[in-house]
Amino acid sequence: MMHRHETDENCQPVETDTDSLDRREFLRTSSLAAVAGAATFAWPNRSFAAAADLDAINAEIAKRHDESVKRLQTWIRQPSIAAENRGMNEGCELTMNMLREGGFGQVTKVSTDGQPGIFATLDAGAPRTVGLYFMYDVKQADPAEWSSPPFDAALVDKPGLGKIIVGRGAVNQKGPEAIFLAALHAIRGAGKKLPVNFVFVAEGEEEIGSPHFPQIVRRPEVEAALRKCTGVFMPFAAQGLGGDVTMYLGAKGVVELELTSSGEKWGRGPRKDIHSSNKARVDSPAWHLVEALATLVSPDGNDPVIQGYAAKARPLSTADKQMIAEAAKRLNEAEAKKLLGVERWVHDVDWQQALELLTSRPTVNIEGLVGGYTGPGGKTILPGKAVAKMDLRLVPDMTAAEALASLKAHLAKHGFADIDVHMSGGYDPTSTAADAQIIRASAAVYKKNGVDPVLLPRLAGSWPGYVFTGDPLRLPAGHFGLGHGNGAHAPDEYYLIESTNPKVQGMDGAARSHVEFLYELASIA
Amino acid sequence: MMHRHETDENCQPVETDTDSLDRREFLRTSSLAAVAGAATFAWPNRSFAAAADLDAINAEIAKRHDESVKRLQTWIRQPSIAAENRGMNEGCELTMNMLREGGFGQVTKVSTDGQPGIFATLDAGAPRTVGLYFMYDVKQADPAEWSSPPFDAALVDKPGLGKIIVGRGAVNQKGPEAIFLAALHAIRGAGKKLPVNFVFVAEGEEEIGSPHFPQIVRRPEVEAALRKCTGVFMPFAAQGLGGDVTMYLGAKGVVELELTSSGEKWGRGPRKDIHSSNKARVDSPAWHLVEALATLVSPDGNDPVIQGYAAKARPLSTADKQMIAEAAKRLNEAEAKKLLGVERWVHDVDWQQALELLTSRPTVNIEGLVGGYTGPGGKTILPGKAVAKMDLRLVPDMTAAEALASLKAHLAKHGFADIDVHMSGGYDPTSTAADAQIIRASAAVYKKNGVDPVLLPRLAGSWPGYVFTGDPLRLPAGHFGLGHGNGAHAPDEYYLIESTNPKVQGMDGAARSHVEFLYELASIA
Repeated sequence: MMHRHETDENCQPVETDTDSLDRREFLRTSSLAAVAGAATFAWPNRSFAAAADLDAINAEIAKRHDESVKRLQTWIRQPSIAAENRGMNEGCELTMNMLREGGFGQVTKVSTDGQPGIFATLDAGAPRTVGLYFMYDVKQADPAEWSSPPFDAALVDKPGLGKIIVGRGAVNQKGPEAIFLAALHAIRGAGKKLPVNFVFVAEGEEEIGSPHFPQIVRRPEVEAALRKCTGVFMPFAAQGLGGDVTMYLGAKGVVELELTSSGEKWGRGPRKDIHSSNKARVDSPAWHLVEALATLVSPDGNDPVIQGYAAKARPLSTADKQMIAEAAKRLNEAEAKKLLGVERWVHDVDWQQALELLTSRPTVNIEGLVGGYTGPGGKTILPGKAVAKMDLRLVPDMTAAEALASLKAHLAKHGFADIDVHMSGGYDPTSTAADAQIIRASAAVYKKNGVDPVLLPRLAGSWPGYVFTGDPLRLPAGHFGLGHGNGAHAPDEYYLIESTNPKVQGMDGAARSHVEFLYELASIA
Repeated sequence: MMHRHETDENCQPVETDTDSLDRREFLRTSSLAAVAGAATFAWPNRSFAAAADLDAINAEIAKRHDESVKRLQTWIRQPSIAAENRGMNEGCELTMNMLREGGFGQVTKVSTDGQPGIFATLDAGAPRTVGLYFMYDVKQADPAEWSSPPFDAALVDKPGLGKIIVGRGAVNQKGPEAIFLAALHAIRGAGKKLPVNFVFVAEGEEEIGSPHFPQIVRRPEVEAALRKCTGVFMPFAAQGLGGDVTMYLGAKGVVELELTSSGEKWGRGPRKDIHSSNKARVDSPAWHLVEALATLVSPDGNDPVIQGYAAKARPLSTADKQMIAEAAKRLNEAEAKKLLGVERWVHDVDWQQALELLTSRPTVNIEGLVGGYTGPGGKTILPGKAVAKMDLRLVPDMTAAEALASLKAHLAKHGFADIDVHMSGGYDPTSTAADAQIIRASAAVYKKNGVDPVLLPRLAGSWPGYVFTGDPLRLPAGHFGLGHGNGAHAPDEYYLIESTNPKVQGMDGAARSHVEFLYELASIA
């Protein structure tokens, strides 16, 4: 639920036609930016992989194209939806088999209080060890909304783009993950030795807020293995429609929760829906909720006023601000507004300020309001219950636990102690230094492939990187991968298999980028 | 939507098990109350109908029992649901045929901008003419929630009650209406002359707020005919489970509306749902709605603070207060609270004050909140739109038009001019004097049948009686009929056909009460 394609996190309209332009299109570079640590982004020495080695591996990637497509199709065709508890064990087992086939020597299912995770290792005898993070669950899908069934994994020609695979999980995250496995198969198939060792962790609850991911990573044997890593990354399809890439040095944390006002718990108002004429003599849990909500933010609905909520929010550093200023020059405000369907930013700020707010501002958002009669027309009832679905986005050094506690304390202080606060998922923010090896290696491979990535301090969306970047591991963590896909959480999710645009990599190009990335990780200083 | 069984209007939990006790059970008289004008409630002289005449008619009612049941079944089996535009013309035609069979000489379909109405007259050559108001539409019904299909009109034995007919419209309002027609058939079948003439109007949009009812009543020929009437009544099943009856001298008016906050109209926030991470830089139509709602009522959600909204609200008169004080003694507070599922009234007022508020207080109620993601769990979106479904209940001398105007002006004044206010239905309050003939005749027949009705100044629910009681007609209007049913707007709606409780009339007893009522109307001073 929390993590998805980063650009979607920021800008992709949710549940709109996936044919609509991806926000990444406006990321196209109009000016080359100096990014932090640019000097280190030069293509490194290729001591680990001679050009001939890479050529052999790339040939193997091409040779195994159909096999790779088939692997991804097999994976998509096994739905594993944590929110529906559907196909979870099957999805876990299938992923474990794919890891074994990909060369992982030790592959273990890790039970949790929820869906099982996976811990695996691949010892290539290399000096360096890299962490890998996968998810094997996908978001729900309503087949009625799809142009081809979400678990058919159909190959379709998409005008202007190329051949795509359509299916739930195609880009989020089975496509990029399968393509990473394709890279491993190609290296082995070409008779080459892997340049790094791997420590692998996967969860099956990413789409419901990773509630039990710490139970996987905090196991002593997993934690011990991860300690050997130089960093952790998740395979990703980073390219927009124009080939552009934005890199984020972290992500906001999130708390997803429901506020429920009910006559049952309040002791005022009705326990069930009653006829609305009774409003004259009976309290209303729906009004109670509205009044409680109104205390949480400024009157314009924009600024959280929950006492203590943002007390630990770290302001942007000078380096952060410089990074954003540079990004503001390269990213197109008009296109961003168009894609979001907005005419102005909060407080009518300018583009750079909007990016600063997006990066730095903790939020209190209403995802949904559900109370009483929600069908067409009206129904003369006084509802016994009303619910606000909320999410809070957190910046360092806020924590999910403290944010939740501050909300509860605020409600109690303002006379709303009866309102039930149910946190369904969420986690702390995550941050990685710009000079971390995986960041530098990512940028280097992107640049080698002609893509100068826009760099931002933080994704405004969320992913559970805090398990790696926070105490006790404090590892760098991020995403990597050329390639393109879209429609995460939306109908007609796709991943690009064969690209008609030379600036955008198809599946084989994405696999090549992973090979290059592994060699880069092995060699970078 | 507005009118229903009055007791349901006040106290019946909506969409709960209809087996639950009806609120009328607590209406059982524990003390005989002196009601306004009690002297006139004595059983009148029977100059119009000799005892022998009534006996012959009652025998005819019994003889035609099966025929009457069949008529009601036929009617229920023809769904006519305005909200779904389902079976409306068929339902109108069927009603017209039933009127012709019942003896109406002239029966005309009246077109409106919505569903057609009916205008009919029956000239019995009597000195007095009485108005009749019918509705031929019914509320929606979800068969999955019913123990027997809503349009099967099954006859079922209900323990402790007797034989009932189960079906949508059984009590609201086809049952009482069909039983009134049964009374007409019986009078004619017994070879007797009707004691009064009738002017009949019916609408097919009662359940959607009677938006076009004035177009029927305001037609010159209809208005002219109604001017001859001494009053207008609607057949009704007035008895609770214990046989008790509460009479109301009017009803609150109502405005049903939707407040919609959208990025589209606001010019701030997104036009469609976007990812929730954007809250940091994009305004939220959902928060905008919450802030607007919070300005409409006092911080406890109980008292409307819309400027000018209640300016014309007429306070309770001394007579009103006396009537409520008497009712408070006879009605059981503990049972009312139990049936409503509430532990305390607003402001912790006592029972008499609660009844005063119910009668006298204009309300601003939230029927439903619908915005963004409303499914299970959460979804990280910033919704482009949020809606509050509301109803306002009005007392004399407020009007629906002025209430709506004050709400719009209030929103505009507080910075919410962009919030769309869509009134879907509603109308003015209605009032009838306690000494009106139809009120006195109703009370007299109830008392003659051993029921001392509780009298209240006003129903807190609503029905479109204003078309009769307001300008220009200014006719008394109300409801009448012994008999019992329950579940209006709920699953397993029923009407009592054969009663096992001698205090509660079944279908034939209800028909007899109509016969007595007509003779009473003809003879009362």
